[in-house]
Amino acid sequence: MSLEGLRVMGIDPGLTRCGLSVVQAGRGRQIIPVAVGVVRTPSTAELAERLLRLSRAVGEWIDDYEPDVIAMERIFERGNVSTVMHTAHAVGVMVLAAAERGIPVYMYTPSEVKKAVSGNGRADKKQMTVMITRILGLSEAPKPADAADALAIAVCHCWRAPLIARTNQLTMKAANQ
Amino acid sequence: MSLEGLRVMGIDPGLTRCGLSVVQAGRGRQIIPVAVGVVRTPSTAELAERLLRLSRAVGEWIDDYEPDVIAMERIFERGNVSTVMHTAHAVGVMVLAAAERGIPVYMYTPSEVKKAVSGNGRADKKQMTVMITRILGLSEAPKPADAADALAIAVCHCWRAPLIARTNQLTMKAANQ
Repeated sequence: MSLEGLRVMGIDPGLTRCGLSVVQAGRGRQIIPVAVGVVRTPSTAELAERLLRLSRAVGEWIDDYEPDVIAMERIFERGNVSTVMHTAHAVGVMVLAAAERGIPVYMYTPSEVKKAVSGNGRADKKQMTVMITRILGLSEAPKPADAADALAIAVCHCWRAPLIARTNQLTMKAANQ
Repeated sequence: MSLEGLRVMGIDPGLTRCGLSVVQAGRGRQIIPVAVGVVRTPSTAELAERLLRLSRAVGEWIDDYEPDVIAMERIFERGNVSTVMHTAHAVGVMVLAAAERGIPVYMYTPSEVKKAVSGNGRADKKQMTVMITRILGLSEAPKPADAADALAIAVCHCWRAPLIARTNQLTMKAANQ
């Protein structure tokens, strides 16, 4: 099953900083980088204003780059509670932006992303940056630094998508028997 | 300071069940009920589909009833983690719906709502329902039962709004001196 040409948008969700990327699947395991960036909203602004800004920025990315699918990091309850809640609000708004445009969303845990990209579910930030730079054939590490996470999430989906498609096929086959 | 005519939409946020209400401030402490209901999204549907349905339903309520302000219950990290995350996604989507229409959102904790409505921050569900039924001059308890929470949040805002407005006035006065 070939995914050549599949365009994936990767999102590392956050309200203060949200990493965005777009990649395109090439031949075999080849992946071509298309765009990478970070959307920021000021922590001094009200929640409503911040969600509105984020929603519009992500909507513009989707409309500009027209991804076939969006891959997002699954968030956990760990860490600062207020930050987690803000991130969860941000995820809601971004999943909605995808749904309004009919684009499917897939979620991956941080360790799934690390495992897919580096072979090691506990790879550190430096190892991940080295791998992403190599996989995408970049002459230097992607900038801004934390946008590398958004690229890693998109790469993770590219490499897992054939498995997901194969599993769905087998499930449908089993259901039809 | 009179708030007569102020129209408040109350939201008891949730993804599986979301309580919605609209009330209008009358003379003095009088409050007139306008609408109450519950939006449900099926737990078997995908998150994207559920958020889309909720966003559209809340958007329709806002467009139909044209509230001046939205009051929402502030959520906490307590309880089932998956439920809290779902509720946080729902809050993000509803705050966005308000922001897109330029309607301010105020958040109140459950104990602030209970205190404002019953005078007791630890009032139970039954006491709250009795108070809400009395305050709004209803002939029987509001239905569905859990929509009473959405009414209580709206009532809480009506009675706290004069204080918020007065505080803002004093703050502005102090800043201008």
